Amino acid sequence: MPELRQDPITKRWVIIASERAHRPRQPSVIDAASNAKPCPFCAGHEDMTPPEVLAFRDGKAAANSADWSVRVVPNKYPALAPDSAAQIDNADFYRARNGVGVHEVIIESPAHVTSMAGLDERQFNRILRAYQERLRYWQTDRRWQYALVYKNQGERAGATLEHAHSQLIVLPQLPREAADELDGVEKYFAETRRCIYCDVVGVEMARPARLVSNLDRFIALCPYAPRFPYEVWILPKTHAAAFEDCSEQDIAVLGMVLRDVILRLKLSLEDPPFNFVIHSTPWNKSANTRYHWHIEIMPQLARAAGFEWGSGMHINHILPEAAASLLRHARL
Amino acid sequence: MPELRQDPITKRWVIIASERAHRPRQPSVIDAASNAKPCPFCAGHEDMTPPEVLAFRDGKAAANSADWSVRVVPNKYPALAPDSAAQIDNADFYRARNGVGVHEVIIESPAHVTSMAGLDERQFNRILRAYQERLRYWQTDRRWQYALVYKNQGERAGATLEHAHSQLIVLPQLPREAADELDGVEKYFAETRRCIYCDVVGVEMARPARLVSNLDRFIALCPYAPRFPYEVWILPKTHAAAFEDCSEQDIAVLGMVLRDVILRLKLSLEDPPFNFVIHSTPWNKSANTRYHWHIEIMPQLARAAGFEWGSGMHINHILPEAAASLLRHARL
Repeated sequence: MPELRQDPITKRWVIIASERAHRPRQPSVIDAASNAKPCPFCAGHEDMTPPEVLAFRDGKAAANSADWSVRVVPNKYPALAPDSAAQIDNADFYRARNGVGVHEVIIESPAHVTSMAGLDERQFNRILRAYQERLRYWQTDRRWQYALVYKNQGERAGATLEHAHSQLIVLPQLPREAADELDGVEKYFAETRRCIYCDVVGVEMARPARLVSNLDRFIALCPYAPRFPYEVWILPKTHAAAFEDCSEQDIAVLGMVLRDVILRLKLSLEDPPFNFVIHSTPWNKSANTRYHWHIEIMPQLARAAGFEWGSGMHINHILPEAAASLLRHARL
Repeated sequence: MPELRQDPITKRWVIIASERAHRPRQPSVIDAASNAKPCPFCAGHEDMTPPEVLAFRDGKAAANSADWSVRVVPNKYPALAPDSAAQIDNADFYRARNGVGVHEVIIESPAHVTSMAGLDERQFNRILRAYQERLRYWQTDRRWQYALVYKNQGERAGATLEHAHSQLIVLPQLPREAADELDGVEKYFAETRRCIYCDVVGVEMARPARLVSNLDRFIALCPYAPRFPYEVWILPKTHAAAFEDCSEQDIAVLGMVLRDVILRLKLSLEDPPFNFVIHSTPWNKSANTRYHWHIEIMPQLARAAGFEWGSGMHINHILPEAAASLLRHARL
């Protein structure tokens, strides 16, 4: 059973999920020469995963059959478990709670594609719609405070299986990053009665040194103070709190914008390992309409090291203005 | 010129040091087959580094000659620069300041040793004394708020040169981790009139499931809520705010304890890549005697990925109780 534990000094929560130590790593990730084991995410291997919770199929094929375009399954080695009892005892000096939550895998392609850049716009659209559907599904459950959709591509970005996939973790509490963002949003609103993300969009549109692309309702930009070289954010230009509430039409455009950014990264930086995360409004928060959802795309070219872990401060060796210029001029 | 920039939403500061993009990576780190270039940290190559700011020599040899045991030099590709003017303009929507600070390298051995586990107790003692001397040197300069001594061993832990070395960064402001720790210390003190680190030591000594070693004035333990598998902290058992104020005798014991932990990690986990950081009290803070210095040693076996970067919450797949048991039973 996973456990959430809190550091008594910094109040930082960590997830202790000792069963995850047993998860298999694909041979191809560890050792490119050996590729013997079948991939559990390929079409035809549906019995290697837990039964699906969502799949997009054109025809009327049965659940867990091989005819799908995007498939969502519970993570076989979850960081958190959905069905568990309440709090562990806190009578102690330390604080902990049961590791209650949801951990799902969104398999992005039935074929063994290892780079998201190999998927077309229709497939991006399906993937984003699958995210939305799963978020809407869990949102109604009062136990959850927050959900994070994220992707790890490449071993250096933390992927343990190379078949293109993303993940959803649903949490019973607001994590630190979301709390920090929400705090910033609230403070700025209290001072100005405006949304800080809307103002960031305004500033960046007016002085486009950090702009990467601008299409319809979305912009992609290198943020002013990025933690990672070539970090890119995608934001809706008009205020919107929740990614899961995007219209079908917006999701179609967003798929194009996200794919375009990933292609630019691939072409400019030789298909770098990367993470992306979708930051959407926390659930069950009265202030949730003040939030402004966005996607953060973080290439993993350098490594966080002693300084970063010890200080919480990142050293980035690429100016975001230089990064944006490179990405803007990618030959697509 | 490096720059400190603040994210307007989370208030997180980052260091943008674009000149660091030019630093050479040792061929052996990138490609084990090629080892053509000479190592700038080996004795005899003193002219490949900036002139030393400290070196321990037995004899009366001249500065920057080859006869040294530990040598400290300014980082050739510094993340921060000590001699620079004040604030960049903040008239803007965004906040930035000049990247003023210090960045030094502590070369831990004249020979080309790549693992700190290969150094003896005398050498650990010298290294720790070098840290102290440099901290004491910079501490008197009123521009600095905080200093972090850290080490990256192994490419997966962020090392770009394999010759054993550690680093010192001195900052004009308190970084996020230090602020969070100090905040926790202050809140606990306000409630209990006690030091939270002293109480952690008391709790862990009474119930030694997470104890790794216990020698003289120091204990090594796996913390209750570790971010990383096999993370170990070394703390003085009696209250002490500043590492740099340790007595010579304590430093000698600390060298033994630190070396012992690094040997246990090496023997238990096949010489893992790791970071360590020395958390000492911030400078120029009225509350600084309330802090309790300690060393955090963080093996880098897994990778921070999308979830960690997006949530600020770490998933650790090893229970600290299991980690401590493994390390306690290492056959030294």
